[in-house]
Amino acid sequence: MSPGLPDLVSIREVGPRDGFQNEPEIIATGDKIALIDRLARTGIKRIEATSFVRADVIPQLADGPQVLAGIDVPDGVSMSVLVPNERGLDNALAHRDRFHEVGVFLSASETHNRKNVNRSVEESLAGLDRVIPRALEASLKVEAVIATSFGCPYEGHVDPERVFAIVRRLIDAGAGEIGFGDTTGMANPVQVGAFFTEAIARFGDEVLITAHFHNTRGQGLANAVAALQAGCVSFESSFGELGGCPVPAGATGNIATEDLVSMLHEMGVQTGIDLPAVLDAARAVRDLLGRPLGSHTLVAGPVDWG
Amino acid sequence: MSPGLPDLVSIREVGPRDGFQNEPEIIATGDKIALIDRLARTGIKRIEATSFVRADVIPQLADGPQVLAGIDVPDGVSMSVLVPNERGLDNALAHRDRFHEVGVFLSASETHNRKNVNRSVEESLAGLDRVIPRALEASLKVEAVIATSFGCPYEGHVDPERVFAIVRRLIDAGAGEIGFGDTTGMANPVQVGAFFTEAIARFGDEVLITAHFHNTRGQGLANAVAALQAGCVSFESSFGELGGCPVPAGATGNIATEDLVSMLHEMGVQTGIDLPAVLDAARAVRDLLGRPLGSHTLVAGPVDWG
Repeated sequence: MSPGLPDLVSIREVGPRDGFQNEPEIIATGDKIALIDRLARTGIKRIEATSFVRADVIPQLADGPQVLAGIDVPDGVSMSVLVPNERGLDNALAHRDRFHEVGVFLSASETHNRKNVNRSVEESLAGLDRVIPRALEASLKVEAVIATSFGCPYEGHVDPERVFAIVRRLIDAGAGEIGFGDTTGMANPVQVGAFFTEAIARFGDEVLITAHFHNTRGQGLANAVAALQAGCVSFESSFGELGGCPVPAGATGNIATEDLVSMLHEMGVQTGIDLPAVLDAARAVRDLLGRPLGSHTLVAGPVDWG
Repeated sequence: MSPGLPDLVSIREVGPRDGFQNEPEIIATGDKIALIDRLARTGIKRIEATSFVRADVIPQLADGPQVLAGIDVPDGVSMSVLVPNERGLDNALAHRDRFHEVGVFLSASETHNRKNVNRSVEESLAGLDRVIPRALEASLKVEAVIATSFGCPYEGHVDPERVFAIVRRLIDAGAGEIGFGDTTGMANPVQVGAFFTEAIARFGDEVLITAHFHNTRGQGLANAVAALQAGCVSFESSFGELGGCPVPAGATGNIATEDLVSMLHEMGVQTGIDLPAVLDAARAVRDLLGRPLGSHTLVAGPVDWG
């Protein structure tokens, strides 16, 4: 371990949802299942497998039920699905035995929330006041992700106090985990350090605090280190550096799981994840998609200390 | 400014040397001149313009004299050239009025040094005992870069004490600046933080300490932040994320100047550099080379806070 850093962090793989949903070509259901099965055998303990959004909004994830039915989930691996609203939760609950957690989301920025889900932030929060308790009744864990927590491509600066007020509402509604999303890669390490220090001080005893960074401007791992130094022990990333955000177009790139794992292990922070196995999965999705991906370690390989 | 961080850092643009030398296709001399002239008008105050290596070893930089003769250097911008040995220095000195600094180099790792310059580390140091004083006699500033300071692709771990012993020799020979190169992207932020803290404590009063990171495994900017937190105020980077190291093949990617500048400015650390102007230069070299480059901000654009 390293002084001042945690011994162990947890990583949720979001590629099968956040990554795949941004792919323009439909990926065959069987291919998705094979990739998730592979990821679930890398030591990754949390995987966002799909979402229950309207098929006409995100056709790529219209096969959510088939994916959930087809995957072979090892003991100890927690599958989550993203639901946009109560209808999405209803649809997900029809497959309740196939997953363990739900993710819900809204944006801290009014404009981004409206462009993304056509609701005001208050309308989203009112909806989550119904969705989260119903998920808890179904014995599901609930992560609530707050998009544009560090800045909005439409509104610019987002006041952390506004974000923290949303956190309070989400905790009161029953969320057990809060994910802070740097949806379009506007965060910087100084901002992230201050933000997570404050978030953990205020809410760290009540909920799990999770960091969700994008590598839009190459700062994704620098932000991850800043969050780690502030005490964050839970991260989301995407194999191959797949992913992004549909709004605005071109806002691409979650941090790559293999780059994050490589860096953390080199820093003496454990993840329980087998890096070569994740690289195999990233290689498989690269071959499937047939184009170079943003991941660095996928090209360079792990550090070889001889 | 941000607490604990410097107000201002200096960046040397190394793309015209470290970047171009890794390009497989020869870049026309006139194109090199136009790009350097453009970079010299971005607020960047230090540029590594070319090197004086044997033309049969690096044909791409065989036009060093023509490049130096052709560039139009604004007042206050310092041009440097890399010289591999005394013969290289002689060749450079024939154009003494066209540049201000020389860079010299060796590797901390015996194997990497031998593969790169076919000498032992001791032989390289003996050569620098002659080269550095001669450069000083010509009123040139001297940066000595120590490659593989954080790890060697052949030998693995490189003992910092070995690196620091080399630093002592280089300072005694007259070097005014020591650059620590993470030549093949093996460094991690914890290692970098400890290394620069120690290097600055030992040598910071005697020489300028410069960080030279590669983004081989996506950690380049995270390492830059770690060096910055340790007190480093001098960095090297390459527009477009051009560059790498010829040994071993495929070890690509200096950190991108525009990604570094974007991050530093967002963190409240000034560079004196105009980010849009650097992005214009990166766009020009991308168009010239005709392929996507590794730079992130070149794709995403600067952060827009509205």
